[in-house]
Amino acid sequence: MALMPLDQALQRLLQQADQLGPTPVETLAAEAALGRILASPLIAEQTLPPWPNSAMDGYAVRSAEVVPGQPLPVSQKVFAGQMPAALQPGSCARIFTGAPLPEGADAVEMQENVQLDAEGRVLFAQAIPAGRFVRPAGEEAQPGQLKLEAGVRLGPVELAQAASLGVTQLQVHRPLRVAVLSTGDELVEPGQPLQPGQIYNSNRALMIHWLRRMGCEVLDAGCLPDDPQQIRQQLAALEDIDLLLSSGGVSVGEADYLGQLLREEGEVNFWRLALKPGKPMTFGRYRGMSFIGLPGNPVSTLVTMTILARPWILRRMGMRDVAPLCFPVPVDFAISQAGSRREFLRVGWRHGRAQLYDNQCSGILSSAAWADGLLELPEGSTCQPGDLLNFYPFSELLA
Amino acid sequence: MALMPLDQALQRLLQQADQLGPTPVETLAAEAALGRILASPLIAEQTLPPWPNSAMDGYAVRSAEVVPGQPLPVSQKVFAGQMPAALQPGSCARIFTGAPLPEGADAVEMQENVQLDAEGRVLFAQAIPAGRFVRPAGEEAQPGQLKLEAGVRLGPVELAQAASLGVTQLQVHRPLRVAVLSTGDELVEPGQPLQPGQIYNSNRALMIHWLRRMGCEVLDAGCLPDDPQQIRQQLAALEDIDLLLSSGGVSVGEADYLGQLLREEGEVNFWRLALKPGKPMTFGRYRGMSFIGLPGNPVSTLVTMTILARPWILRRMGMRDVAPLCFPVPVDFAISQAGSRREFLRVGWRHGRAQLYDNQCSGILSSAAWADGLLELPEGSTCQPGDLLNFYPFSELLA
Repeated sequence: MALMPLDQALQRLLQQADQLGPTPVETLAAEAALGRILASPLIAEQTLPPWPNSAMDGYAVRSAEVVPGQPLPVSQKVFAGQMPAALQPGSCARIFTGAPLPEGADAVEMQENVQLDAEGRVLFAQAIPAGRFVRPAGEEAQPGQLKLEAGVRLGPVELAQAASLGVTQLQVHRPLRVAVLSTGDELVEPGQPLQPGQIYNSNRALMIHWLRRMGCEVLDAGCLPDDPQQIRQQLAALEDIDLLLSSGGVSVGEADYLGQLLREEGEVNFWRLALKPGKPMTFGRYRGMSFIGLPGNPVSTLVTMTILARPWILRRMGMRDVAPLCFPVPVDFAISQAGSRREFLRVGWRHGRAQLYDNQCSGILSSAAWADGLLELPEGSTCQPGDLLNFYPFSELLA
Repeated sequence: MALMPLDQALQRLLQQADQLGPTPVETLAAEAALGRILASPLIAEQTLPPWPNSAMDGYAVRSAEVVPGQPLPVSQKVFAGQMPAALQPGSCARIFTGAPLPEGADAVEMQENVQLDAEGRVLFAQAIPAGRFVRPAGEEAQPGQLKLEAGVRLGPVELAQAASLGVTQLQVHRPLRVAVLSTGDELVEPGQPLQPGQIYNSNRALMIHWLRRMGCEVLDAGCLPDDPQQIRQQLAALEDIDLLLSSGGVSVGEADYLGQLLREEGEVNFWRLALKPGKPMTFGRYRGMSFIGLPGNPVSTLVTMTILARPWILRRMGMRDVAPLCFPVPVDFAISQAGSRREFLRVGWRHGRAQLYDNQCSGILSSAAWADGLLELPEGSTCQPGDLLNFYPFSELLA
């Protein structure tokens, strides 16, 4: 069976996300909208700033009246928050940053550049060009101007932008409701004693905390045993779930009961991806929910959830541009054997070089805890020290 | 007055943070520790995996017994979660990913590489080297091994690592308690009507949402008027606050009452930084609290909070390595005039080039909403298209 190229898998995921459409829109106080995706564009209604204002603490002048060495008296003081009177001819106005420029004034000289004479008049060291240190009205926003597009994620900067426009309510998509499943008789939750043959379940913590970071509503659907009947019952009990996200149990092994059940009773596709780590992945619909089944090795789970599930989830929450930022960085190691799958290596970004964690096995979670992100080695490629490869910081992938 | 180099300001900030020491340590359920800083190292107590196990779905063998073309009968089936019997000589074991290797077996062949004969015996296509597809015991962790250092921030990967060790409780630093102040008669909160000379307060949203992202406990201390008496009263009412973070009101203008008060009644320093935007900054202690006063222009606030306040805040919460990741990226523009201050430009990272937002004024918040991060132009430097400059993604700076 030919392996599916990563780009094709990504395309199919996003196509299906777009067919299903984003989660419903709700109105939220801007205060509570951190991390949400904006559902309708934010259009300015006002002129911002509403009036030309001073970019500096200094003196507002009619620029044509300024002659170096000839003092101008101070006819008024303008603080931010006040509307000043018009500037009297032959005078200047003491003015502070952000304060509206008096009518007639067309420039500001910063206080560091002037001297005061014995009578408190202002001596300018140089001629002042019109417009100097003046922020024109409407520089930030004008009525009807698009300030934030629908589909952007609302971080601190976007919410500050909304506040600057006086906006208190925002149209946003509701969070995706994700049920997290782990499967496997070998898995035990932390806090329980390990029986022979068992290990602790780390994927549950990985997926749940990551989904919370992404702004999803997370339901912990527990760790399923490798028993078809119990799996069916637990799935049937899930209500109002948009996505069932599982790790493990979706390969084609005889014990992969969850995968079997989904293939039999849902419309799911089993993909063998040209991706390392993370070859097997299941994707589709089951009883009105979407299903993404990630491979169970911890690093395979990490790679498939951040590279494949992340764009699907964000798109379902209404986000337009779901590609994480990545940067071409020089590597300090060689990989001499080209692979047939695109590989995401765990690397540290240290001293201006991408350094390889020595054990790249998909079962070694320590590699990810040590690393700063994933480095993309294209299928069929090798690398030499100094070569540039794309680096995806975890700060981009894990939120 | 000479401008203070950015590196010197950073050094002083971190020195003071280290003198004050990190916030107290508390024990938290791992479940609730997302975003917290680990206060004591996480040391493995077990061998993980506890036994050699299969990296594949396939067949476990004694490698020396495998002869291509000579079938081996299947003497047992080993699922993950089970402890198998020893492997009978002259046989192989059906085995699934993660299942413990039977005693005597020393390799696994993946199922894709074998054939079954009419009697269900396994035909191998090639000789199998010892160790093939076997994950050795202790590959992930060994008793006494350091798995997470004190001072790391707990993201999804770190919490998964803790879970893999069976850990349910973590020693973490308590969040920093930060009171956020805005000052300025010109500022109005969104939702209120604008009077002449007024603008909406965007810095409050910027700082509060950013602090929440960083894991701080945020108290909104409101927007102070430019009145010394009211400012003193409001500051006196703050209790159990580690940091007072303000924007505006800390320059040397006559209306900067907050700065005046802090200089008179606290131990605060006013810095003029070799930084653009963001020259003026106030830093020190006032009545048992730390104080960081950022400049009031929105982009100046953004730059100083992410470049200067962020490392101080994270260090106070116990984080060891507080420098954000940055990446050398090619720019697609020229800056021909070298400045005396280090400049952080708002740029987009598009099509493999850093693109400059056309209006770099410090009052223009749109520049930051458009941008993907900050680009560092060193003091005294120019740049040409193709030059590499350090890019700080917002994903690193805003969390």
